[in-house]
Amino acid sequence: MTGKIICTGLGPGDPELMSVRADRVIRSARHVAYFRKAGRAGQARRIVEGMLAPGVIEYPMEYPVTTELPVDSLAYCEALASFYDDWANRLTDLAQSRDIVVLCEGDPFFYGSFMHLHVRLQGHVGLEIIPGITGMTGCWNVTGIPITWGDDVLTVLTGTMPEASLVRHMQAADALVVMKTGRNLPKVRRALAAAGRLVDAWLVERGTMPGQRVIRLAEACDTDCPYFAIVLVHGHGRRPEIKTGGAR
Amino acid sequence: MTGKIICTGLGPGDPELMSVRADRVIRSARHVAYFRKAGRAGQARRIVEGMLAPGVIEYPMEYPVTTELPVDSLAYCEALASFYDDWANRLTDLAQSRDIVVLCEGDPFFYGSFMHLHVRLQGHVGLEIIPGITGMTGCWNVTGIPITWGDDVLTVLTGTMPEASLVRHMQAADALVVMKTGRNLPKVRRALAAAGRLVDAWLVERGTMPGQRVIRLAEACDTDCPYFAIVLVHGHGRRPEIKTGGAR
Repeated sequence: MTGKIICTGLGPGDPELMSVRADRVIRSARHVAYFRKAGRAGQARRIVEGMLAPGVIEYPMEYPVTTELPVDSLAYCEALASFYDDWANRLTDLAQSRDIVVLCEGDPFFYGSFMHLHVRLQGHVGLEIIPGITGMTGCWNVTGIPITWGDDVLTVLTGTMPEASLVRHMQAADALVVMKTGRNLPKVRRALAAAGRLVDAWLVERGTMPGQRVIRLAEACDTDCPYFAIVLVHGHGRRPEIKTGGAR
Repeated sequence: MTGKIICTGLGPGDPELMSVRADRVIRSARHVAYFRKAGRAGQARRIVEGMLAPGVIEYPMEYPVTTELPVDSLAYCEALASFYDDWANRLTDLAQSRDIVVLCEGDPFFYGSFMHLHVRLQGHVGLEIIPGITGMTGCWNVTGIPITWGDDVLTVLTGTMPEASLVRHMQAADALVVMKTGRNLPKVRRALAAAGRLVDAWLVERGTMPGQRVIRLAEACDTDCPYFAIVLVHGHGRRPEIKTGGAR
């Protein structure tokens, strides 16, 4: 038997929002790998709680560093590169005789750690990717407001970008998503204010998950932003006027 | 009994990529509504083929116009506004005594027709929205290449925008998605060339669906682009260097 590596997107967090295919693959998996911070349960593992078959073998892939080193330092890059190299080799060996399911929050190809394995695995082992609902899609849905209409331009930014770049992009787009907020929240807030967009910004923490919070960003404290938080500004593009004052 | 309107995202096209919740709601629905062009089966209806319960009552909502009138003309806006007004009223009446499931390709809050009903229904009737994998997410997955890494900026554009605006946004972002290509494909191609991005652009037609085609945009004919086509340029952001030349 030759195995393969199946990376499945888990969606934004609510287990019912993963795809039918992901649900089936996860419930029938015998070998499951996922990223997590050392000493933590891991968000991906938490989403599938109660879904894994009895006797499943788990491979937690623990990041060697997270926020201890600057992301642009050589030490950080080298630690991460070795980590991904090692796991790519281990998963390739394991997949010689069995299927390995890799769990990935959101969609695997959208700012995901799995991509660093993917680029190392491609061409060396059988690979299958199952898309997922992105975290941002889950977040804009829980605000209850559509994100893009008509000709709206949507730009997705990361809180890790330089402040001046954030401002420039925030001014140029209609709808905005800011990923990777966390400790960058004060900078993101300043950039939105400079771009004249702060008044329309929302902060969604743990979107679609237990403990979900949806608030106006202007009302949030800089100090209490968890990692699973996304900032949104909704678009208001072209739309046919309502004639009758809404539904009867 | 008081009913409600449940709008469910269907995902990018492959029925196995809809969410577990969407799958359950659709299979148990008694009343199902969906948009379509007059005289067509409708893409949303096609995705759920074989899933609907026997005896389900269907409400095809047929657009009064599609491409016969310019989208910025008064006649177009008035025809669409009356259409959405009428269906908002009909669905509100129906939902007084039953649940109505509205089918929506992709995600309901991302450039979807349902949003024009949503804005009319909100506050007048019970509403539930089930997110879906966006069409663009399905499309970038089938290219087999991640769309965004590290600090990449992703901008989503529509082929209906003015050419100069397209060029400006295409120059400013790392990763690009262009929705609503179709007859705008020649303009999108010219804009990408002017922005120096044409060489990296992909065209995905019917992504995740039967008849899927994934090609370099530079190799596509302007004349044969179906409506369900998305143009993509992948980002190449910060990533830890591969040390060992890929997996063993």
